[in-house]
Amino acid sequence: MNADNAEIIYDTIEKRLREPDFLPRNLFEKFNIEVLSTTDSASDKLEYHQIIKDSGWKGKVIPTFRPDAAVNLDKPNWKSEIDKLSEVVGETIDSFSKFINALEERRIFFKNMGAVATDHGVRSPFTYQLSKSEAEAIFQKALRGEVTESDAKLFTANMLMEFARMSIEDGLVMQIHPGSLRDHNNLIYEKFGTDKGCDIPEQTEYTNNLKELLNKYGNNSSLSIILFTLDESTYSRELAPLAGHYPALKLGPPWWFHDSIQGMIRYRQRVTETAGFFNTVGFNDDTRAFLSIPARHDVARRVDSNFLAGLVTKHIITFDEAKMLSKELAYNLVKKGYKL
Amino acid sequence: MNADNAEIIYDTIEKRLREPDFLPRNLFEKFNIEVLSTTDSASDKLEYHQIIKDSGWKGKVIPTFRPDAAVNLDKPNWKSEIDKLSEVVGETIDSFSKFINALEERRIFFKNMGAVATDHGVRSPFTYQLSKSEAEAIFQKALRGEVTESDAKLFTANMLMEFARMSIEDGLVMQIHPGSLRDHNNLIYEKFGTDKGCDIPEQTEYTNNLKELLNKYGNNSSLSIILFTLDESTYSRELAPLAGHYPALKLGPPWWFHDSIQGMIRYRQRVTETAGFFNTVGFNDDTRAFLSIPARHDVARRVDSNFLAGLVTKHIITFDEAKMLSKELAYNLVKKGYKL
Amino acid sequence: MNADNAEIIYDTIEKRLREPDFLPRNLFEKFNIEVLSTTDSASDKLEYHQIIKDSGWKGKVIPTFRPDAAVNLDKPNWKSEIDKLSEVVGETIDSFSKFINALEERRIFFKNMGAVATDHGVRSPFTYQLSKSEAEAIFQKALRGEVTESDAKLFTANMLMEFARMSIEDGLVMQIHPGSLRDHNNLIYEKFGTDKGCDIPEQTEYTNNLKELLNKYGNNSSLSIILFTLDESTYSRELAPLAGHYPALKLGPPWWFHDSIQGMIRYRQRVTETAGFFNTVGFNDDTRAFLSIPARHDVARRVDSNFLAGLVTKHIITFDEAKMLSKELAYNLVKKGYKL
Repeated sequence: MNADNAEIIYDTIEKRLREPDFLPRNLFEKFNIEVLSTTDSASDKLEYHQIIKDSGWKGKVIPTFRPDAAVNLDKPNWKSEIDKLSEVVGETIDSFSKFINALEERRIFFKNMGAVATDHGVRSPFTYQLSKSEAEAIFQKALRGEVTESDAKLFTANMLMEFARMSIEDGLVMQIHPGSLRDHNNLIYEKFGTDKGCDIPEQTEYTNNLKELLNKYGNNSSLSIILFTLDESTYSRELAPLAGHYPALKLGPPWWFHDSIQGMIRYRQRVTETAGFFNTVGFNDDTRAFLSIPARHDVARRVDSNFLAGLVTKHIITFDEAKMLSKELAYNLVKKGYKL
Repeated sequence: MNADNAEIIYDTIEKRLREPDFLPRNLFEKFNIEVLSTTDSASDKLEYHQIIKDSGWKGKVIPTFRPDAAVNLDKPNWKSEIDKLSEVVGETIDSFSKFINALEERRIFFKNMGAVATDHGVRSPFTYQLSKSEAEAIFQKALRGEVTESDAKLFTANMLMEFARMSIEDGLVMQIHPGSLRDHNNLIYEKFGTDKGCDIPEQTEYTNNLKELLNKYGNNSSLSIILFTLDESTYSRELAPLAGHYPALKLGPPWWFHDSIQGMIRYRQRVTETAGFFNTVGFNDDTRAFLSIPARHDVARRVDSNFLAGLVTKHIITFDEAKMLSKELAYNLVKKGYKL
Repeated sequence: MNADNAEIIYDTIEKRLREPDFLPRNLFEKFNIEVLSTTDSASDKLEYHQIIKDSGWKGKVIPTFRPDAAVNLDKPNWKSEIDKLSEVVGETIDSFSKFINALEERRIFFKNMGAVATDHGVRSPFTYQLSKSEAEAIFQKALRGEVTESDAKLFTANMLMEFARMSIEDGLVMQIHPGSLRDHNNLIYEKFGTDKGCDIPEQTEYTNNLKELLNKYGNNSSLSIILFTLDESTYSRELAPLAGHYPALKLGPPWWFHDSIQGMIRYRQRVTETAGFFNTVGFNDDTRAFLSIPARHDVARRVDSNFLAGLVTKHIITFDEAKMLSKELAYNLVKKGYKL
């Protein structure tokens, strides 16, 4: 691509996107997608999900409960998210207990709309159980606009504990995506807003940060936590040992920058010998690029098949086991992992 | 294995273990084990070692001096270990200098019973030289049950300095196994006690933490420290440069979670170009699973042979050098490293 | 090499080094070196560079502006470097603004002597913009010999900001070499002085540390920062995402301990999928071992060619693209990166 061919490429793409077989629902069917999940804030009314339901179309598009905006006390849009949440539950959220009630109510609504999972984008996977009165005190400070960075950090740590408890109660799978320093480039942030591709990973610590949560809920096999990382040094050091030990914990596939050939190879090489295959959830695609979905699954299946073939040639597994595992990694594990 | 075949598998194993050729001493001989080392607390009377000696059996089973229980001031069983230590040296240990004397005396006893090495399981490899009066003050606080976490950390850091000094004096090889957060899962700890497989690795820092020890003793080639890690990111960044530089320091083989095919490959790939082969100690097995010993050595030898073969095909070493090195890695280096 | 052949090897080398074809300039020409850069302190008069210029010899040997000694307030030789700097600019440097003026003047002198780049060896890549009065206050404390470790750290962080600004103004490429704990072994330091091969890498953090600098200058494509690391865990986690995002940032080749076959392989495997090839600067050699230069370039070219060949056999790039890229990696990118 260069200045000479930019216009013709743009025009070709635009024309193509208007053709019937490139409309989203037709692509969805052509791609043979069984389930597609969106992520939606806690206050989202999911009206577009309702429209799909009402349309009679058979494609399965389900919401995912992602309450980050309601949890991040120190973000500028927190108060407005609380207002939206108040509106949607029909009650002014002026206390921590009302906040918790509202979230629990929204989860049930999401579940009724087809959701199978929640998603939590946290900078650090720090977990910590606050007492009710401590949580209430921080919440009141936040309502008064007096919250500190340390308050916000403790509150998020406590909310991960709360969300794990809720997941045990309502059965929603709990995904945690930590370790990204969001909006690294202020210029882009100020011009275009948040989540514009300027997020840079940072060192992430799991062994100590998740201890409180895993000690309280990690032995409960009715909980299912799917954990992701952007810090590959944690695969063999922390994540595989943790997933190998705690019944509630499974590892998500290589994520974001590591959703790539070498990234997938490193993942299997570093995770498998300690955590095996069945403490992972196979491949699920996490993208805004709808058109890339088939290629991403194709890459994951090829890399995993190649990894399994290597184990067969070394006589570590049999060819029959490899065939069984390839189906698990490509299809069964992700269905089981997300209770689909 | 499943519910259907569990009983028959259990019965088969139990029956097999009662057959004469599956008795420990017969397996020891069948496995062609030259030396097996146990790890024993500082207060251990080594009576079972004496029984083996007295039995006339020719198998070489030797103790290793592992004084962690006497060093960890903030562990609940510290005081009882000091009592046992007092009993075994026949003097009440009520001062730091008596504590040091007792440890020195026990090391001589262990050495007389065949020990060639000590072993130190520390959470962090932090080393720090306390003055005698500082160490004494912390020791007295511990006796009064008033020790803080920070006291305990400093005390352990100081004891690594003391143990290095003792190793120079009595010639025992000093092994350091850092970086495991022990008893991560409280449920298991409370039900079954310590060291029940719920230990999770954490980030480990060597460059700054070992500086004090290596500056005081690292240039002394009569000291031999064998260093292990659970944090593979330190292989190329810290451990290989340190082992390449300090005469007293050698690297132990890939440990625990990394005692595996991919773990061994990563170890050689990341360590060799900076530290070479002769700053490592070949393969020694660290396991509670007696029956797994031959398989573990077999895996290590195959992986190392494969690594050497790769160097031969790339003309980095000759075939003759590879043959010499394969014997070093499988046999000679570990004998030399542990002064066997 | 051993005690028996030491003398004959030494004598052979010494004799060889006296032969005409082993004189530095003849080797330079035989090696077909286009450019060789030295690194020189800010106060250096570059008289040897002038001698080369005056000699009529056609070899291109250029200086690099490396002002570490003038920046490290807490090093024992800082004051004497300021004195030398005062002498060479003909004015007593008794204020921060005079210090900045002197550095700017020296950069122009270096540039006129052929320099294309600066080099900054910092323990941590921490960047922070001090106000003029804050910087002045710390500078005055340093002149009075009252500077603290924290002052020195802030001052260095601020100087990286200043040097980035200067690079935008005078066009010199800015190299940053962080993450080495210098003079780890005091025995060697006290006997032989600084930079004697006793430097050990440590964990290095880029995402947060470089945020201030990259936010102020990273979107300015007239700035060119070439960043190095000794912490390979940052390749995929921090460096590739940062270099992929900020126009001003490029990644230097694998450095020091990682300037090796496996080190180069890890670099390409971990960097390429996120940062591509054109956010790196190909291979440039960083050595005191003049005779090793051809071998080092040969290794880099073979490893990169092998990496490209792997991409061709997997049909990720075409053979023609590989040929184009191999020339970029071996030659073009480094020329472009250093504006040669």
